[in-house]
Order: sequence, then C-alpha cells, then structure tokens
Amino acid sequence: MTLMKNALDGKLTPLMVEVAKNEGIPGEEIRKKVAAGRVVIPKNVHRENVQPVGIGEGLRVKINANIGTSPDHVDIKEEIEKANAAVKHGADTLMDLSTGGDLNGIRKEILQIPVPLGTVPIYQAAAEVIGRGGSIVDISRDDLFNVIEAQAKEGVDFMTVHTGMTKESLERLTNQGRLTGIVSRGGSFLAAWILHNDKENPLFADFDCLLDIAREHEITLSLGDALRPGSIKDSTDRAQIQELIILGEHVDRAREKGVQCMVEGPGHVPLNEIEANVMLQKKLCGNAPFYVLGPLVTDIAPGYDHITGAIGGAVAAMAGADFLCYVTPSEHLALPDTEDVKNGVIASKIAAHAADVTRGIDLKRDIEMAGARARLDWEKQFELCINPKKAMEFRNRRHPQTPDVCTMCGEFCAMKMVKGYLEK
Amino acid sequence: MTLMKNALDGKLTPLMVEVAKNEGIPGEEIRKKVAAGRVVIPKNVHRENVQPVGIGEGLRVKINANIGTSPDHVDIKEEIEKANAAVKHGADTLMDLSTGGDLNGIRKEILQIPVPLGTVPIYQAAAEVIGRGGSIVDISRDDLFNVIEAQAKEGVDFMTVHTGMTKESLERLTNQGRLTGIVSRGGSFLAAWILHNDKENPLFADFDCLLDIAREHEITLSLGDALRPGSIKDSTDRAQIQELIILGEHVDRAREKGVQCMVEGPGHVPLNEIEANVMLQKKLCGNAPFYVLGPLVTDIAPGYDHITGAIGGAVAAMAGADFLCYVTPSEHLALPDTEDVKNGVIASKIAAHAADVTRGIDLKRDIEMAGARARLDWEKQFELCINPKKAMEFRNRRHPQTPDVCTMCGEFCAMKMVKGYLEK
Repeated sequence: MTLMKNALDGKLTPLMVEVAKNEGIPGEEIRKKVAAGRVVIPKNVHRENVQPVGIGEGLRVKINANIGTSPDHVDIKEEIEKANAAVKHGADTLMDLSTGGDLNGIRKEILQIPVPLGTVPIYQAAAEVIGRGGSIVDISRDDLFNVIEAQAKEGVDFMTVHTGMTKESLERLTNQGRLTGIVSRGGSFLAAWILHNDKENPLFADFDCLLDIAREHEITLSLGDALRPGSIKDSTDRAQIQELIILGEHVDRAREKGVQCMVEGPGHVPLNEIEANVMLQKKLCGNAPFYVLGPLVTDIAPGYDHITGAIGGAVAAMAGADFLCYVTPSEHLALPDTEDVKNGVIASKIAAHAADVTRGIDLKRDIEMAGARARLDWEKQFELCINPKKAMEFRNRRHPQTPDVCTMCGEFCAMKMVKGYLEK
Repeated sequence: MTLMKNALDGKLTPLMVEVAKNEGIPGEEIRKKVAAGRVVIPKNVHRENVQPVGIGEGLRVKINANIGTSPDHVDIKEEIEKANAAVKHGADTLMDLSTGGDLNGIRKEILQIPVPLGTVPIYQAAAEVIGRGGSIVDISRDDLFNVIEAQAKEGVDFMTVHTGMTKESLERLTNQGRLTGIVSRGGSFLAAWILHNDKENPLFADFDCLLDIAREHEITLSLGDALRPGSIKDSTDRAQIQELIILGEHVDRAREKGVQCMVEGPGHVPLNEIEANVMLQKKLCGNAPFYVLGPLVTDIAPGYDHITGAIGGAVAAMAGADFLCYVTPSEHLALPDTEDVKNGVIASKIAAHAADVTRGIDLKRDIEMAGARARLDWEKQFELCINPKKAMEFRNRRHPQTPDVCTMCGEFCAMKMVKGYLEK
C-alpha cells in the first residue's frame, strides 16, 4: 500500500497528519490532495530519520538545494558541509547530484541529514559506465534500472527521471531548432543515448517497470524536463511543450499505480512567460506539483543568478509553482562552495516566502517585523530576520549616535519622527 | 520655453534627438511622448555635463542610485566613490540624499558626475534649520522654497517634492490606521510640520510657485509618495491611494505649465498587488512616468533587500513602471558602503533588464550570451556579463580539467554532450 493508495482508501496516515500539522491545515485536506496527486510527500519506505515535507497545492512553497561532486571537483567533506549549510538556512529538501568520486559513500553520508533526499540516477549509471572505460551511450537498460533500484533500497526519497525525452520529443527539438539545444545534464545523456543507439529511452520504454520500483519503495518520481530551455530565447517552444505533454501522460500512469509524482519545469524563461508556463504545467499534468529550476529571467547575469532565479521563482510560485530548486551565484560558472549554497538558499527562500505571503501564509512574521520596526525594537527585528547574523553585521558596521536609530537616517529617522509627532 | 512646451509646439530639440538615439527609436516618438508627459528627460537648464536620460513609456527601464551622508556618518570622499561606483555599474541617475556635513559642497562635487542628479530639497531645509538650533517644525515656507530655488540654480535636474502630503491625506492616514505609519523621511518631516503648525504643507499650498521655479530652471518634479506603505501589511491602503489621487491632480497642473513630472510609488508591496499599483498610478496620474522604490515584496529579509527589491522591481517594471530606485543590502540597517551600492545597482539593473527583455529591448545581449554558452566560448560570455569581473572570479576559483567546460559538470557538460552527439 503506497501513501497515495492509502489516501485514496480514505486512510489518514501518521505521515499525512504530521505534514498537515506542519502546514497548519486539517489532515483531511492533506489526505484528499495526496489522493488526487496534487500534493506529494516524498519519503522512501526505508527512510527513518526524515522530517516529512509536503509539496503541492495550498502548501507553503518549498525549496530544494542541489549539492554534489563533479568529475572536476571531489571533496566529500565540503559537500556535507554544503548540505548542512543548506538545511540550516532553510532548504526543505536536498538533491545529491554527485558525478565524481565514491557516489555510494557520498550518498550514504547525505542520507544522515534528516530532510528528503533526491537524486538523478542516470548520473550514477553514467559515472559507472565511464568508470568501466565505456561512454554514456554504452549504458544498458539494466545499468540504469539497477542503479534506480539500488538507490531506492538505500532510502532515496525522490528521483529525477527524464521519461519525456523520447524519439518523438527529440524530433520536435530538431524541427524546432534552438539556440541552446539541451541543457539538462541527464537529458543530454539520454539524447546522446537515443541517437547513438537508435533506440527508445529505457525510462520511457520501460516506464511501467520504473513505476513498479517506485511503488515498492515509495519513491516520489520527479519527472524531469530534459528539454527545458537553456536561454530565454528558447523558452516555451514546441520541444519543451511536447515533452510536457508526454510527462502529463506519465503523471496519469503513475497515479493509476499509486505512485506519487511531481513534474519539473524550466529553466530560462522571460518574466512575461512564467505565469503561462505554470498554468500549462498544471493543465497538462493534472495539477501535479510543479518543481521549477529558477526560472532565470535573463541570461546576462552569471555571478548573480541567485537573484535572476529569485525573481523568476517568486513569480512562478505566486502563479502556482510548488517547489523551487535554488540557484546559486556560481551557476553557469563553477561548482558552488558553501557560501554560494547559503546565498542560493536564502535567495530562494525569499522568493518562496514572497509568494507565500500573497496567500496569507507566514504573513504573521512580516507583520511582527513591521511592528518591531515601528517600535524601533532592534532585538526583535533581528530575531525575525531571514538571516539575523547578516543583518547584525550591516547594522554593527557603523554605529548610530543614538541606539534607537540606524546610520541611514540618524535622527532623521521617519519612524522616530512619527513616534514623536503623530503618536502624541 | 520648457522642453515640454517645445515638444507641444512640435519642435524636436537636440536633447530629444539624443535620447531617441540612445533608445533606438524615432525622435518624433520621443517628442510626442514628452509633449504628452509620458516621457520625461530630466535636465536642468543650467546643467552642461550630463548624459541625457529619457524615462517613461516604451523606453528602456532606468535605475537610480541614492547616495549621500547622514547626520551619523559624513565622509564626502566615500560618497563620491559610491556615486562613481553606482554609475560604473549601470545607474542611469543619482540622487544625493545627504543630510549631514557640508550639503552644498557635497552636491557640488556630485554634480561633476555626468548623469542626471536628483535631490529632496526638504532634507537641506531641515538640516539648515537644525543647524540654526531649531527643529523640523520650525522650517518656514521661505526656508523651503529658498533651498529649492538655490538647488535649481546649481543645476539639480530633478527634485522629490511631497506635494500630496496634506491635511486631507494625513486625516485619511489617521482614519486608516497603520502598522508602520509614515516611512518617507521627507514625508515624516512634513507630517510633523503640518500637525505642529496646524497649517497646510507649503509644497501643496504654494504648488504654483513650485511650478514657476521648475519651469524657469527646467526641473523635473518627482512627486513624492510620503504615504507609501512601510510594510507589506500597509500596502495599497486608503492613505496611499488618497495621496496618489492628489499627485494625479498635480501632474495635470504641472503639464498645464509645461513642467515635466514623474510620480513616485511604493515601497513595501506584496507581489500580488504590484501590477495593480502600477495600473492605478498610470490611470490616476495621466500615464506620467512611474518611479518606484523597490517595491520590497517581504519585510523579513534585511541584509538581502536588494533581492526583495529586485523581485518587486522586475514585476513592477514588467507591469509598466519606468524608473526603479535601487535598494541596497544595507537598507533598514545602515548607510550603505561602496560594496552595497554596487550590489544594489546590479540587482536593480537585473530587474530592469528582466523587464526590458519582455518587450524585446536589449534582448540581443541575451541571445548573444546564449550563443556563446552553446559554443562554450567563455571569453565572449564574460564580455557580455553584467559584471564580468564577478563572473570570472567564480569561474577561476576552481579550475576545470579541460578549459571548455566548468567545474559544475566537468566532462558531463550538457552543452558539450550536445555538441558531440546532436550536432554531428
């Protein structure tokens, strides 16, 4: 019995109760939404030490932080440090995207951190085949499914599977023509594989087998967007939407087997196309939770893509996206370090929160902050800050002449002026 | 003959021609929009060394950086350094908001920098009266108008004047009740003045005199929003909209005298109210250029308000706001330093650009960047970056094993994979 089947049978499990409590909504509401596939709670049946997280309609917008080694930079200690920094600053989930070093060892360590963990199993399949002296196109169907099953048994809670990268969608991509082709790592592996072997993507061809594994271990599938645009010029094109249509069909098939799934989305999208992208995903994919990467609203700001991603993420979340994958300042340039991870998580958290408050979620904290400002109560302000340490650093850099104001306006503080004259 | 009168007379002046050239649109289009008051070109008749900047409908979104001393921190050299850093990183205009030290001396130095300069004259009036041992409420009508005239003669290009802070709007504020009262510095001075003296705001009472000075020296009036919300809880309330109605009437009166003006707007606004705020301003104020501060989409992120401001600014600009006042990371905490100014300008620039590309403005740069990425042409990528130095720092921090990729994915670079397989 999967979580979704339980929900469909009207059974409110402890996991649903806990998520409902975290969200401050009735358990029955969570149950109904899990049953309908509008909310997912990614938690592998073998996983013990994990804080349950609900993702989807009506819930607080969640954020994910990617960590992991690359072939060019392997430092497990640093990755664990990054993972912990991400969770400390508010990441709701982690994804381990490691492609270099001892992948099983890294994952084992990250699984000790009590938040839902996601992976992209094709990365490990690729690393292993290359480790054996082969290349991406030599990955066998079994290589891939064996990795998926092994990771499922280890306790991975959600997995990105690019099931919509097919001969059909590749043809649409070719017909379309693009400035930046394919920018999804897993998507590019599968595209190369399909073209080289002239065979259908095993994740698509054997989707039922994938569902069986997911059902057995309670894996939440994150249907990957292999054809997400890699530049704002390529956004919302026929290739992207073709893949989304296929993913929508996979959502239906997953639900029939009681498998939880969410759908991944772009990517690089100009600000005025974001709302339509969210609407399209919700319509084509039966209101499955929508997990977006960014979206980045311009391509010219490498070094600041946590900001371009926060702009896009806030607008996407306001339009209904449920889950934001963070973007760090080092995106497009290098593997992030701990400071980048922290800055990426905070920017993403701001975006998620900015959308939440539009629905009255967590608005109390903003109201309390405003009150503390009006009272010139600095201690309370710091307490409510998204990152009190940072705020204190700024304030303490320059000391005001009187402790109730700050050096921005000094005695000309409007708040103080108002207290002196208007509140008499 | 003011610029606006010339435009109404059908005369295309060199200033209009230059702005049209900068924007890449026909001169006649600029002339029509200046005539209609939908575009302003703030340039004092006495100012020589200034790069003309057009602000308004259909033009590239512009950004302003505030600099200036406070009573608690006076360092002229640092302010000049900040001003230069702001312009270097893309600020289109500067505002000198100094309230501490030798205000005339500071302004004289800042006027050497060749971008339009704005001020808030009541700051100087306040500093002078306090320097004479008085208090804000002792400012006389003549004190204020003398400062305005003196600054006009010096070459200040645009001035914030809180002409909508009146007995009527203050009463509406009291009836409304607010969490954070008044957060505009100039607005709080005037509110205190009105209440203490039980007289009408001189900027409102003598608005015609203000228009005469503006007409004589070609000052663009920036009608200030003294009653902007200081927290997302207070946004779009009756006090804010009452003031906006009064400002709309002042726009009409300014246009009758051939005086250019724009209207300032909030402030702290939740994401889902921004579009309506822009629409309201445009409707109530005869499509005058809209100059927004932020807007900040949450109150809980001091230390990161350049990000909350970039989210709000991008959405406001997409909805039609024409001019974004930057917000630095030290907002609400301290007077910014040079690094804060740089970060504030870049975040604001990203917001402005994200809105511009939705209208096809400057999209070429994004397309070139995408092309450079697809070709793995790093040199070209850096050239196109909003801040090449920052991007290079990230990339050079960790060295990839092969120079065509980065340490994020190493050889698993999707772009490289696609080049290898899809482009055969």
